[in-house]
Amino acid sequence: MTMKLWELAGAEDDRLFSPYCWRTRMALSHKGLQAQTVPWRFTEKAALAFSGQGLVPVLQDGERVVSDSWAIAAYLDEAYPQKPLFEGAQARALALFLKSWCERTLHLPIMRVILLDLFGNLHEGDRAYFRESREKRFGTTLEAFAGDAPAALAALRAALDPLRPVLAAQPYLCGVAPAYGDYIVFGAFQWSRALSPIRLLQADDPVYAWRERLLDAHGGMARNARGYPA
Amino acid sequence: MTMKLWELAGAEDDRLFSPYCWRTRMALSHKGLQAQTVPWRFTEKAALAFSGQGLVPVLQDGERVVSDSWAIAAYLDEAYPQKPLFEGAQARALALFLKSWCERTLHLPIMRVILLDLFGNLHEGDRAYFRESREKRFGTTLEAFAGDAPAALAALRAALDPLRPVLAAQPYLCGVAPAYGDYIVFGAFQWSRALSPIRLLQADDPVYAWRERLLDAHGGMARNARGYPA
Repeated sequence: MTMKLWELAGAEDDRLFSPYCWRTRMALSHKGLQAQTVPWRFTEKAALAFSGQGLVPVLQDGERVVSDSWAIAAYLDEAYPQKPLFEGAQARALALFLKSWCERTLHLPIMRVILLDLFGNLHEGDRAYFRESREKRFGTTLEAFAGDAPAALAALRAALDPLRPVLAAQPYLCGVAPAYGDYIVFGAFQWSRALSPIRLLQADDPVYAWRERLLDAHGGMARNARGYPA
Repeated sequence: MTMKLWELAGAEDDRLFSPYCWRTRMALSHKGLQAQTVPWRFTEKAALAFSGQGLVPVLQDGERVVSDSWAIAAYLDEAYPQKPLFEGAQARALALFLKSWCERTLHLPIMRVILLDLFGNLHEGDRAYFRESREKRFGTTLEAFAGDAPAALAALRAALDPLRPVLAAQPYLCGVAPAYGDYIVFGAFQWSRALSPIRLLQADDPVYAWRERLLDAHGGMARNARGYPA
């Protein structure tokens, strides 16, 4: 029985842009597992009632329903031990720091850079909800929050600084081969790639070369997804 | 034959304050290994000639000489496999990101906060060298670089942000038990503790509770070292 993965989609069913869902897509590909995408929009909270909460990704594997990308990663390693996402408990603990750093350091500047492109690529039915909920969260209009795009891009590139010596020393954050730690950070770049033609990275950046390797990983799954080729 | 560890010392031989040397001290304790400290000052470059470079820590283990704290950690796991510092290659790769983040995000604000206390605790013979080399590096006087101490402290506390959800979810950065990833970040706090009475952390911070656990680890070795109890 094929697994199902509820994923955030934009105007088109295959414009899949959630950084959290991208972690799960990469994790499934890593293990060679197939899951049927169920496109989901922000305003379809009721459609996730079966999962007991209102956010994607949600993975349905037979009778088992797992939400939250971090919990899904643990579930996948438990249920499908081949090609582990985490080498062991210590690697998982250290990846949790990478997750925290990514979400608290990279997501906000990326949001500023891509926000208006994100809005433009939303499904029509999501636009009013998105504007209202995000303007409340940001305390200002989407346009004011996006603000000065070149400054936001410079802030993002500065925030990436701790990745650079690591990716100059080894091909992946997880070492010689990609694993879940890589997919956490890569998800943030796929979020942008799905929505915006703005180039987050310059070609001479070690982070660019790493992203290229992940775009090519697992048969080029991420590169072939709908988005703006960087 | 007892190992020897060349470590940076201040005015007193046992005021050991290098964050990099602290990583090695904790790593040795982690494995239950003894090493005799050889106090070293900035102006004693010639005394390290045997290591082929001019920085501490340097570990001498019989005929073997290893410099650089990261290389020493790898050496210790190779030569003394008991109680590994790294669970495996992936954990080591992920710890390299933690190292890069710590050095590029925490060290500079800590330096600003403790700089004048650091200078006051240097060995007399190191002061002129330190002032000249650091003023050249910073492009300004020590006093101007230290600048506004409350602002520097606030910047440090903000920089610690990605640690907090991790240390609220698990007792150590490496999971249920401390390992090298913890010692990397802890070394930065021991640098401060050896030199300055300024309290970097507030008692309700999850980072504070984590630091307390590491001060108590391995028989309280870090807590009993010369410094300013926090």
